[in-house]
Amino acid sequence: MTTLLSAAALAAAIREGRLTPLALAERCAERIAALEPEIGAFAALDLDRMRREAANEGPRLAGALLAGLPVGIKDIIDTADFPTRRGSPIYADHQPASDATAVRMVRRAGGLVAGKTETTEFAFMHPARTRNPHSAHHTPGGSSAGSAAAVAAGMLPLALGTQTGGSVIRPASFCGVTGFKPSFKLIPVNGIKVFSWSLDTIGLFAAGVRDAAFAMGALTGRDFALPDSSGTPRIAVVDAIATEEASPAAHEALAHAARLLARAGADVRPLALPEAVHAGNAAHGTMQEYEATLALADEWDRHRTLLSETLYTFLDAARAVTPEQYDEARRVARRARHALADAFADVDAIVTFSAPGEAPEGLHSTGIASFNRLWTLMGAPCVNVPGLTGATGLPLGIQIVGRFGRDRVALTVAAMLEDALAAG
Amino acid sequence: MTTLLSAAALAAAIREGRLTPLALAERCAERIAALEPEIGAFAALDLDRMRREAANEGPRLAGALLAGLPVGIKDIIDTADFPTRRGSPIYADHQPASDATAVRMVRRAGGLVAGKTETTEFAFMHPARTRNPHSAHHTPGGSSAGSAAAVAAGMLPLALGTQTGGSVIRPASFCGVTGFKPSFKLIPVNGIKVFSWSLDTIGLFAAGVRDAAFAMGALTGRDFALPDSSGTPRIAVVDAIATEEASPAAHEALAHAARLLARAGADVRPLALPEAVHAGNAAHGTMQEYEATLALADEWDRHRTLLSETLYTFLDAARAVTPEQYDEARRVARRARHALADAFADVDAIVTFSAPGEAPEGLHSTGIASFNRLWTLMGAPCVNVPGLTGATGLPLGIQIVGRFGRDRVALTVAAMLEDALAAG
Repeated sequence: MTTLLSAAALAAAIREGRLTPLALAERCAERIAALEPEIGAFAALDLDRMRREAANEGPRLAGALLAGLPVGIKDIIDTADFPTRRGSPIYADHQPASDATAVRMVRRAGGLVAGKTETTEFAFMHPARTRNPHSAHHTPGGSSAGSAAAVAAGMLPLALGTQTGGSVIRPASFCGVTGFKPSFKLIPVNGIKVFSWSLDTIGLFAAGVRDAAFAMGALTGRDFALPDSSGTPRIAVVDAIATEEASPAAHEALAHAARLLARAGADVRPLALPEAVHAGNAAHGTMQEYEATLALADEWDRHRTLLSETLYTFLDAARAVTPEQYDEARRVARRARHALADAFADVDAIVTFSAPGEAPEGLHSTGIASFNRLWTLMGAPCVNVPGLTGATGLPLGIQIVGRFGRDRVALTVAAMLEDALAAG
Repeated sequence: MTTLLSAAALAAAIREGRLTPLALAERCAERIAALEPEIGAFAALDLDRMRREAANEGPRLAGALLAGLPVGIKDIIDTADFPTRRGSPIYADHQPASDATAVRMVRRAGGLVAGKTETTEFAFMHPARTRNPHSAHHTPGGSSAGSAAAVAAGMLPLALGTQTGGSVIRPASFCGVTGFKPSFKLIPVNGIKVFSWSLDTIGLFAAGVRDAAFAMGALTGRDFALPDSSGTPRIAVVDAIATEEASPAAHEALAHAARLLARAGADVRPLALPEAVHAGNAAHGTMQEYEATLALADEWDRHRTLLSETLYTFLDAARAVTPEQYDEARRVARRARHALADAFADVDAIVTFSAPGEAPEGLHSTGIASFNRLWTLMGAPCVNVPGLTGATGLPLGIQIVGRFGRDRVALTVAAMLEDALAAG
């Protein structure tokens, strides 16, 4: 239904003179003008400015890594020239004084800021107005709803999101695009509205896995070139986290992905995670609760009548978490990270569910993060690989999880899966 | 020369009805009005508002932990009702939309925000206008210059600061007050202007060690009650970091402190830190440089002509640090933390220099952080214990360093030293 915009291919076309930043900006602007009324991916948008910047800066940007590609920025990330509403009426008129570091990384790499993308309230669970580009009656997922939808609708080649529970991988799975949550702190979080400082991670959305790797290299100045051949990676199938929450379609998709990976030459084996790793799942909730009561202290103390009922109820209950419980959760998390590192000793990547299934019907909920929380807490790089659909015909992603700090390995295995899915 | 205001004693007096928050606010306001023209500790101040809040909120606050004590907030920490200039003309008109978490913690504990205290530019090295309360011709140290000076001048019982290198411990030493830099992230940093996210730590200034412990307990909701008897702590004397930079007076003070601690019953022994810990000292610089180029990306890209020459030169050179060098520095830091944890296996606290000596003459430099950087990188709790003076007659502090997460132990040993110094 949509034609995704490949960031890597478009940047190459611009660098080689086959396309100009302005022509690309026009293409994106047309697509946005046509689809935005139905999808509602943007919280702030200025297509004329984008065209103007592409025209004025185009010749200079054409030689830069991102070559003037328009990039969407989740609306909990500060921008100096767009309001930043954080999905909350509390910040209806909020205009940050400066760009977040991640926004500056986009600009330094030669990207254009296309606009701000819709987020759930403070990147928690109260939904954004965004609709799934594959079906107006289904959620795009959250919290990075607008970023996922904008890329899935072919409005933009790239968009930044954040993940505290499953806010990059889940919407990527629901919208059928690549979502990449890098290792914790690989992209600095200065200038985002914090929900949980031990968990919040900036990630991105792109058409394909190689587009995500391309963007990561451009943004971070690190080597994200994926090898031509993926060799024989050792891949562990993990299906025993919240197993009962995964739909039959999700189980089928995971088994299918595992078979394809084996057929493509990977050494695929099941993996039972140690109990110490599973324990991290519960620690995530405690840490998120405790930190959110402090990170949102101003909003609670001064504006709580403007919070959604969902967030109000969450924060009200979260106040019961004691510092001692928080410290214990941090110890559990640390032990889980060590145990996971041990489990990764003879494994290159884990293949597992991205989400319980396709996007649920309705816009009242963005879905659940049961298959994402643990990996966020572990700080591990996670990739949603699109390409499959479920019984509803909607997208259903597969998640590749790598070892902390081994982001390129995770993307390499994800690209292998992407190729295998494309080949059938 | 000054009468320090004891936070613990004043809060007790208010709780017991011997003092009101309004009477205390009046006392602070008078002191500020008299001394501020010479010392220049405040970047933003509204004494009438402080009095009004103390009058209106006083009866309610009298029962709270901080009992309405006026607290100074370093001006890189966001406040919703005071401008936050970050020591830079770039933010001359900057008014944050919300309070930083630490400011909310002060208010939730029943403190009053007295005003914003002067900071060096972005908490780096370009000096604030503040003068040392002990001598108008000497630096108060930096970067938390105003917070240290306000407490040292008896203007306030408490003030928040931050430390990336030595920005709490050094000004506390130069100004002759207690400075406490807690374990990394014990006080959340959301809402501060970041310089280096791996290092920036919020700390505080108070009259004495027990005042700092009292405030930490009130702010964090954790148990910071110090034991009546400090027992027989095992204390390691560390004098081999940047030894040649320590003045004869500093060496003498450290030896004196070690003798007093031994006489007070501590088990005092020398400690040669493992090479892996020393290596952390160099890693600090690399990490700070790399992270500052990203944390200050907006200011560099959009406003660099408004940076001081000191900061401009630093950031310009820092751009040469590669991601690979940064990653290597992080590995060195991690090994140093593990080696320090091992060294702490049979040690309760380290006693070492706070600074190379008394405050240097002049206001053009805030001094150096040679004795602080490593401990900041280690995330270790650090206390400056005042009580000694050097050859110039100016204050000279002694530093107690604890094990990461054992903040109360560090404060207990610091209180033991404080008592020993008071007893002579």
